[in-house]
Amino acid sequence: MDNHLSASAGGRARARSLGVVVGALPTGPLNAITDVEGVLVGHTTLDDGADLHTGVTAVVPRRLATAPAGLPAAVHTGNGFGKLVGSTQIDELGVLQSPIVLTATLSVFRAADALLTYLMELHPDGLSFNPLVGETNDGFLSDIRRRPVTERHVLDALRGASGGLPAEGCVGAGTGTTALGFKAGIGTSSRRVALDGGPVTVGALVQANFSGVLTVRGVPMPVEELLPGVRHEEPPGNSCMIVVATDAPLDARRLGRLARRAIFAMGRVGAAYSHGSGDYAIAFSTAPAHLPPLPDDALNPVFAAVLDSVEEALLNSVFMATTTTGVGGRTSYGVPYDRLQGAGARP
Amino acid sequence: MDNHLSASAGGRARARSLGVVVGALPTGPLNAITDVEGVLVGHTTLDDGADLHTGVTAVVPRRLATAPAGLPAAVHTGNGFGKLVGSTQIDELGVLQSPIVLTATLSVFRAADALLTYLMELHPDGLSFNPLVGETNDGFLSDIRRRPVTERHVLDALRGASGGLPAEGCVGAGTGTTALGFKAGIGTSSRRVALDGGPVTVGALVQANFSGVLTVRGVPMPVEELLPGVRHEEPPGNSCMIVVATDAPLDARRLGRLARRAIFAMGRVGAAYSHGSGDYAIAFSTAPAHLPPLPDDALNPVFAAVLDSVEEALLNSVFMATTTTGVGGRTSYGVPYDRLQGAGARP
Amino acid sequence: MDNHLSASAGGRARARSLGVVVGALPTGPLNAITDVEGVLVGHTTLDDGADLHTGVTAVVPRRLATAPAGLPAAVHTGNGFGKLVGSTQIDELGVLQSPIVLTATLSVFRAADALLTYLMELHPDGLSFNPLVGETNDGFLSDIRRRPVTERHVLDALRGASGGLPAEGCVGAGTGTTALGFKAGIGTSSRRVALDGGPVTVGALVQANFSGVLTVRGVPMPVEELLPGVRHEEPPGNSCMIVVATDAPLDARRLGRLARRAIFAMGRVGAAYSHGSGDYAIAFSTAPAHLPPLPDDALNPVFAAVLDSVEEALLNSVFMATTTTGVGGRTSYGVPYDRLQGAGARP
Amino acid sequence: MDNHLSASAGGRARARSLGVVVGALPTGPLNAITDVEGVLVGHTTLDDGADLHTGVTAVVPRRLATAPAGLPAAVHTGNGFGKLVGSTQIDELGVLQSPIVLTATLSVFRAADALLTYLMELHPDGLSFNPLVGETNDGFLSDIRRRPVTERHVLDALRGASGGLPAEGCVGAGTGTTALGFKAGIGTSSRRVALDGGPVTVGALVQANFSGVLTVRGVPMPVEELLPGVRHEEPPGNSCMIVVATDAPLDARRLGRLARRAIFAMGRVGAAYSHGSGDYAIAFSTAPAHLPPLPDDALNPVFAAVLDSVEEALLNSVFMATTTTGVGGRTSYGVPYDRLQGAGARP
Repeated sequence: MDNHLSASAGGRARARSLGVVVGALPTGPLNAITDVEGVLVGHTTLDDGADLHTGVTAVVPRRLATAPAGLPAAVHTGNGFGKLVGSTQIDELGVLQSPIVLTATLSVFRAADALLTYLMELHPDGLSFNPLVGETNDGFLSDIRRRPVTERHVLDALRGASGGLPAEGCVGAGTGTTALGFKAGIGTSSRRVALDGGPVTVGALVQANFSGVLTVRGVPMPVEELLPGVRHEEPPGNSCMIVVATDAPLDARRLGRLARRAIFAMGRVGAAYSHGSGDYAIAFSTAPAHLPPLPDDALNPVFAAVLDSVEEALLNSVFMATTTTGVGGRTSYGVPYDRLQGAGARP
Repeated sequence: MDNHLSASAGGRARARSLGVVVGALPTGPLNAITDVEGVLVGHTTLDDGADLHTGVTAVVPRRLATAPAGLPAAVHTGNGFGKLVGSTQIDELGVLQSPIVLTATLSVFRAADALLTYLMELHPDGLSFNPLVGETNDGFLSDIRRRPVTERHVLDALRGASGGLPAEGCVGAGTGTTALGFKAGIGTSSRRVALDGGPVTVGALVQANFSGVLTVRGVPMPVEELLPGVRHEEPPGNSCMIVVATDAPLDARRLGRLARRAIFAMGRVGAAYSHGSGDYAIAFSTAPAHLPPLPDDALNPVFAAVLDSVEEALLNSVFMATTTTGVGGRTSYGVPYDRLQGAGARP
Repeated sequence: MDNHLSASAGGRARARSLGVVVGALPTGPLNAITDVEGVLVGHTTLDDGADLHTGVTAVVPRRLATAPAGLPAAVHTGNGFGKLVGSTQIDELGVLQSPIVLTATLSVFRAADALLTYLMELHPDGLSFNPLVGETNDGFLSDIRRRPVTERHVLDALRGASGGLPAEGCVGAGTGTTALGFKAGIGTSSRRVALDGGPVTVGALVQANFSGVLTVRGVPMPVEELLPGVRHEEPPGNSCMIVVATDAPLDARRLGRLARRAIFAMGRVGAAYSHGSGDYAIAFSTAPAHLPPLPDDALNPVFAAVLDSVEEALLNSVFMATTTTGVGGRTSYGVPYDRLQGAGARP
Repeated sequence: MDNHLSASAGGRARARSLGVVVGALPTGPLNAITDVEGVLVGHTTLDDGADLHTGVTAVVPRRLATAPAGLPAAVHTGNGFGKLVGSTQIDELGVLQSPIVLTATLSVFRAADALLTYLMELHPDGLSFNPLVGETNDGFLSDIRRRPVTERHVLDALRGASGGLPAEGCVGAGTGTTALGFKAGIGTSSRRVALDGGPVTVGALVQANFSGVLTVRGVPMPVEELLPGVRHEEPPGNSCMIVVATDAPLDARRLGRLARRAIFAMGRVGAAYSHGSGDYAIAFSTAPAHLPPLPDDALNPVFAAVLDSVEEALLNSVFMATTTTGVGGRTSYGVPYDRLQGAGARP
């Protein structure tokens, strides 16, 4: 199976299948966050073909089940215009104690409450939980004020989470998002890094919904040029949620360094880092707790893996998304396929 | 009317009415956060006399209605074991754009969603809101896993918010909390500061639920001594939420300095600053936006006002609370009244 | 005079004179940080043609003289491997109270002490000063352990600071630095932004000394390809100091948002954001204190100006630097001029 | 030997020898930071009996010699009005890589440069070092603008550092400091904590120079009451540097939690936490690197040890200091001895 050729609806293609190769590091077998052993992804997509284009994406580290204290984790805020739930406790304790759920802005608290339900069922005696829920604003295409995400939608995404290549583009929490002038959504990618202690994997998953000029391996692809004559509206509430998973043994401080690089990677695809963008990265490690963390001066290749996998995940989030018309009759266009094909041609 | 003698159920008395005077600065007329012009407080109390002892407390700055960009504000994290909602956007933009709601840990997301409802009604075209909701864990006395707080409870607290002296002790978000070995709850206090530009008011409101040894003006009052023979259990999830309001013109950076002092004040009443405590302070200013902020080197008396008003609010939160038996038959005892009477006797 | 054609030793050219235009915003008249009214730059260069290639660069805001409380300012740490002096007080008070001095790592404290001398002379009664001194490690080309920077060198840079186009490349604190595989040094650039309240200027000055692959408007220019056969060594202690000046009225919090974008801009020229890099940005405003700060939602064009001016300053820092052989016989090569000429050809 | 009775010049006594016992935890054998195995303290005192009352105090962890990557460490800023050198790299890397030097404000850069000399001698090939130097402002009693601290003074303090009970009061970096209305200086204390894995030691050393009202175990001792008729001037630049050492295995994140508690402890002795105070705590661990860090939920007794040892160190810094007249004829008075004797009498 060639995962690079996997496609969602509309015959879309992942960046790599079009010859767009980011960096020199090899990918994992799926080129996805699920290449990190035990990391599962689940989506619930809400698309009524009319005013609702939204959903839920869950990243579920299986290791949570056997790590009662949680997994080492850190959140980095690139631009804090956003309603991220759960970050202060991660800052304090340096651990992720719940799956990560992504959804739409005004649904974030219902999703967090649903994630509580999930955690309470797992821990029948627990009196305190710290769900982590991120969001971006899909109100450009979806009737966000309806708050359509229910507990069932969240539990379905969590319980349906699986390994394998996750769906990308207009799916789950990416159903209604828009980035860099085009329809975007969920994207994922991974890298393998050979270290002295053996290979480690870094995987990224993004919910892309931010402004800027799409830039593919350094080549700007402004929507005005790729889609001349199409009226382009900038959606409000641009944001980007980035999840970075790794099986490298890293503590919270070092994972914070990774999370920072995840935000830096946004610039490579043309992010404007605008005022109204909630740009957050969460990084966690699935390594066994008894392993000592990698020394800081061994981290450069891991940093490179973060930069490259996030860049490619962002490209995938755009390349795999398809033209969508939503609330108010507004349309967000997928990148024209012929331009995608050409993108890999640059030497 | 002598507000110092105001009492909640059980003939409790505020610290000052017992002669416990914190610091040299004068209080406002009510000795409450509501002394800050336009700051309202509302409570919804859920107490079924059995397993539920919880609720909602709302702090509503009237100025929000006429300050579309929000009020200058800052959050300081003393110890981030907690599920505070809304802090990252305040960190980024330096503004409070919603009333502040306090409630119980597992109800925090339902309360945040209810606050969304409130904000959406006020702004029928809004697509993005940043509700601020704090919590402490009242699971020692209340069946927290029921998540009993509904949208109605939150809206009632918000819409019923008023000026005047707020109820203290076992009320609203303080119904089921415990602090410093005794039953605690909500407390409030205020100070007036004469500055060159005229007097300003600082008001504090606390939801006290943290461990330590009650210390009244330097005198430790360990529960073991005040209540000999009573079995004392330490409740889990100790935390403290502190709201500081002021009409002094201050920007977010300076308000962050105030918020830090609010956390420092916890030590004065004997806080253990324990691992599992979610200790957060939020400070905001109601001053007109066109006023330049006070210079930093004029802030010392304002800092003193924060330290003193938070200390006294914390004392009030304990002094005004009454013995409560809750879920699992666990009891949290109010400070014995005769000891309160003696507390003010020290010269 | 066409400043774009100004050149330092070796017939080097600024990016723009070669047709490399970053972004759509116009530059200021000099395309330099000195386009911000009253911002002066001074250099002291220490180059003995043998083991010493180091120096001092000073950025002197004239407004300091008439702003006793200092200028609004913020520091952002991209990667804190570095010995930046003065940041904690800027974090606390949000003001710059001294000129900014840049130098080499092991000279940073002597430079800070010399800046104290300067400040003490200006304020004969002062008992407390907060000099801001940044550094990068030029030990690849210069005998850094000699700590050759003296008080005189620092005072000369400060007192000799002037308006006009600052020298770039191998000068001052950039004499011995290396970036993106090539010899680098000091670079500067500016942008003008039309806002509702009138135009504002953003200027950047960088001391570039960090690893990565030189990327010019998206086109990677790896040293291995541009200089085939040349042995490339990665110098230790890669770092980047970025100074952003603006006449836009901004408070410390908003300047912190600008400083973050300055760090993000490093990615555009190919920064590896490596472990051992001390990447810091300091942003300050020269606007009169009585002007209210720009609202946050008006900042996007200012953010763009920061991203673009820092990107171009970084390119200038490389384009203007010339091949240098230093301590241990190590050589850092300037980007080949013919490749520079070609860089602007891309449509 | 009864260390509690050790005294510096003037027949001063440590808090504990006067019956002032802070908390329930036992002290180490010396009740000093040197109870942490391998932590040495050295002082250089500059006191000319006239205008100079200043000096250097060095805390030297022997473990640095065998821990090339450094010791886990964290800095917490209580109030960032100060010129602390070295904090940003500790924030990034979480390690202390140099002894800690304390001195006077305007001498901080010369001291940092001298510490560089020390480090360069230890590491003849090193090109990058991160000296940690803190300061408080002794300009009330000492002619601070002379910058009298030389390289020799710093090297003497470093090389003369030893185990045993460090001198306290008017010695080293505390020679000219003033706190809580009285002459203060250096103080130290320690605690032993029994944990499941065996006992650990926490030691604190302070350079006390901050405003407030001296409070001994809850009893305020205002200078106006203890020294009626004496004209009390508040010195400028109040600050407090706190060093916390422990042999408990802790990583940087957890040490950051300890450092925060060190700042909280200042409130217990009456700190005003004033605007102009540079209040910093640095915490480090000497535990072998292979030991896994203590779990966070085991930290409460360690937090208590920090709170108690810092409180007692601060009391010792005042109790052990003697009346000093310095520059400008200004006098700072030691706490009257008879009042000290009475302080322990409270039940």
